[in-house]
Amino acid sequence: MTLNHDTPVDLTHVAGLLTRVREQKPLVHNITNYVAMTLSANVLLAIGASPAMVHAVEEVEAFTALSASLVVNVGTLSPVWVDAMRLAVKRSVALGKPWVLDPVGCGATPYRTAVAVEFAALGPAIIRGNASEIVSLAGSSGAGKGVDSTLSSEAAVGAARALTEQTGAVIAVTGEIDYATDGKTLLAIDSGHPLMTLSTAFGCGLSAVTAAFAAVAPPLSAASAALTVYAAAGREAAGKCHGPGHLPAELCDALYAADARMLKRNAVATSRVL
Amino acid sequence: MTLNHDTPVDLTHVAGLLTRVREQKPLVHNITNYVAMTLSANVLLAIGASPAMVHAVEEVEAFTALSASLVVNVGTLSPVWVDAMRLAVKRSVALGKPWVLDPVGCGATPYRTAVAVEFAALGPAIIRGNASEIVSLAGSSGAGKGVDSTLSSEAAVGAARALTEQTGAVIAVTGEIDYATDGKTLLAIDSGHPLMTLSTAFGCGLSAVTAAFAAVAPPLSAASAALTVYAAAGREAAGKCHGPGHLPAELCDALYAADARMLKRNAVATSRVL
Amino acid sequence: MTLNHDTPVDLTHVAGLLTRVREQKPLVHNITNYVAMTLSANVLLAIGASPAMVHAVEEVEAFTALSASLVVNVGTLSPVWVDAMRLAVKRSVALGKPWVLDPVGCGATPYRTAVAVEFAALGPAIIRGNASEIVSLAGSSGAGKGVDSTLSSEAAVGAARALTEQTGAVIAVTGEIDYATDGKTLLAIDSGHPLMTLSTAFGCGLSAVTAAFAAVAPPLSAASAALTVYAAAGREAAGKCHGPGHLPAELCDALYAADARMLKRNAVATSRVL
Repeated sequence: MTLNHDTPVDLTHVAGLLTRVREQKPLVHNITNYVAMTLSANVLLAIGASPAMVHAVEEVEAFTALSASLVVNVGTLSPVWVDAMRLAVKRSVALGKPWVLDPVGCGATPYRTAVAVEFAALGPAIIRGNASEIVSLAGSSGAGKGVDSTLSSEAAVGAARALTEQTGAVIAVTGEIDYATDGKTLLAIDSGHPLMTLSTAFGCGLSAVTAAFAAVAPPLSAASAALTVYAAAGREAAGKCHGPGHLPAELCDALYAADARMLKRNAVATSRVL
Repeated sequence: MTLNHDTPVDLTHVAGLLTRVREQKPLVHNITNYVAMTLSANVLLAIGASPAMVHAVEEVEAFTALSASLVVNVGTLSPVWVDAMRLAVKRSVALGKPWVLDPVGCGATPYRTAVAVEFAALGPAIIRGNASEIVSLAGSSGAGKGVDSTLSSEAAVGAARALTEQTGAVIAVTGEIDYATDGKTLLAIDSGHPLMTLSTAFGCGLSAVTAAFAAVAPPLSAASAALTVYAAAGREAAGKCHGPGHLPAELCDALYAADARMLKRNAVATSRVL
Repeated sequence: MTLNHDTPVDLTHVAGLLTRVREQKPLVHNITNYVAMTLSANVLLAIGASPAMVHAVEEVEAFTALSASLVVNVGTLSPVWVDAMRLAVKRSVALGKPWVLDPVGCGATPYRTAVAVEFAALGPAIIRGNASEIVSLAGSSGAGKGVDSTLSSEAAVGAARALTEQTGAVIAVTGEIDYATDGKTLLAIDSGHPLMTLSTAFGCGLSAVTAAFAAVAPPLSAASAALTVYAAAGREAAGKCHGPGHLPAELCDALYAADARMLKRNAVATSRVL
């Protein structure tokens, strides 16, 4: 057991990665669910990336070759989409391009869990999910102990550590507090807003933003930056809302205007050595 | 012929059902059209329900088993989606869970009408459509008289009465005035706003909200509450808009904030014995 | 070489066509991509048209027969959707109804390019794309000279002239300045706003609006009116925004309120004989 000192995440560095996204405008290939497509495209545009949604088996590999990174989100999966995801992922891995897995609803049905487990083993740079998805994925992927008993943050962090060992991916778990870990370092971001759970596809949008950062930085830095920027923008946005209705629009505006000052105003992000 | 006294709908009871949705947070399974998915998810979140969009034949029955209610909306149907709808509906019926049918565009093409007719016979708790859809469905389902001559509210109410006899479902017909009937009672809600017709998928969103109420109340109460809350929230929302653009966001905010006072401020809902 | 005098587009005429859309409420059949569906429906409703999204092979021809015009957008194509597009297009042509092609991403993958080239040859009234799409389509469709070297507006205009000769369609190229040409006249509209590129599916929405105008006017007039109204509304909308978040909602409000005065306030549209 090491002594754990929480040190603040360097927000200037995070802002620098955001600038890098805006300068490089990475083409982010999204194979995502129907509900999340529009928001995913808009949050990517708002941070300066270039989104595309392409899923036909006939073209998905060619498109992967053009893209800087890929996000695979199983929210509204069906077999032909899974075929396309498999092709895109394998091509990404072959080309050494980072890809992000969003195992939406892992644990809800056997089919969904099986697909998520299959993809978790295919070498994602980052897996981003909520606590129950990460706990389910870690358990189903063969963690030594049953992890389906509780969905507290503690349990999710344990599952994330198990899952990073199993998959080699950085694991991001979002919830009241967001965590990211590569097994050696644990980041904790406490900057979001409860209203963010009342507007659909916010988690999916975060996975897309994570893929944009993964195109310009190593996985742990990318996950850390994505979580920090998104949570801070979400808090900034929620402060302008009386309900969830305008939150997607305000989130895009906050992402579009995000800079070091906005991050410092909103972000509570710390890091500790595990 | 009975004497018909219009009595006001008990808005305190409606507000109580809304509270019940917020407390129980029913998981509403949506098999709906691409255009309506995001709004459906957002209005469900706004009233406190938990939406999910799941349509793969491989998992749809397992997901139905987890859900509190189901909405089947044929807006952008295709054969593989219809297969999934059929499985989900049959499982819902077998499990005694309520499901809502939205026969979008019934009457427009023979394929669409045939699908709507097939599902109307499978035991929906509630069917929700506009006048022409309900008139077409009632006519195609075998009402004694041709009903394609007029789409006035009177005709729609007649068709709704025929359709409730044919199917056993509560029928909700929305338009300038919204109606709901179980064949014995007729509810009339005159609280919406014309702007609501200028923003896409508002009817589909109402069907989703109806499924949420169907998870916590019997069909006629559920339809009455859904129509009343949605129309009142729509009127509240439209009062804050200069056009249709912000209406979806304002509708979500109004649903999120809805309470007995808001209902009393906006709702004109009456009931009569048929 | 003729002397080229730039003459202003008659904005009163454009406003008249907008009135015609509002009076006739054309049913516009959309076979479009998942990301663009909601915005396409909402911009069509905002200008007074009646949108429908129908793509099943089983009903697409029957629906084409009911519609006033069709838009085919290949943004998220897959084989079964392409089959439906082919049926709808052939039926539209057989019935003498105008249809608009949006060759999203033409040039990005061989599959996508092949589909766009196939459809460009099937008799669209109007093809609407960005510079790289039009340049790619013109080149792949057999223009005499290679056109993939540059994506400046000049190159796009040259490609548009080549493409109109190849296809007989009016070509609309959108970008910093929008162009439309039938090979004899060249329209230039310089009224949009850079923020419009930061909200997804705005180009797709314009293609849908173009199809609405194509239902009430000949192709060049329709393209001219659609580009002029949409760019002016976009500029009006962007003036009310601090970022891209609320732009879709503000665009709908501006389209809903559009009239000759709004056009005169925002539109810079000129025409020249080629």
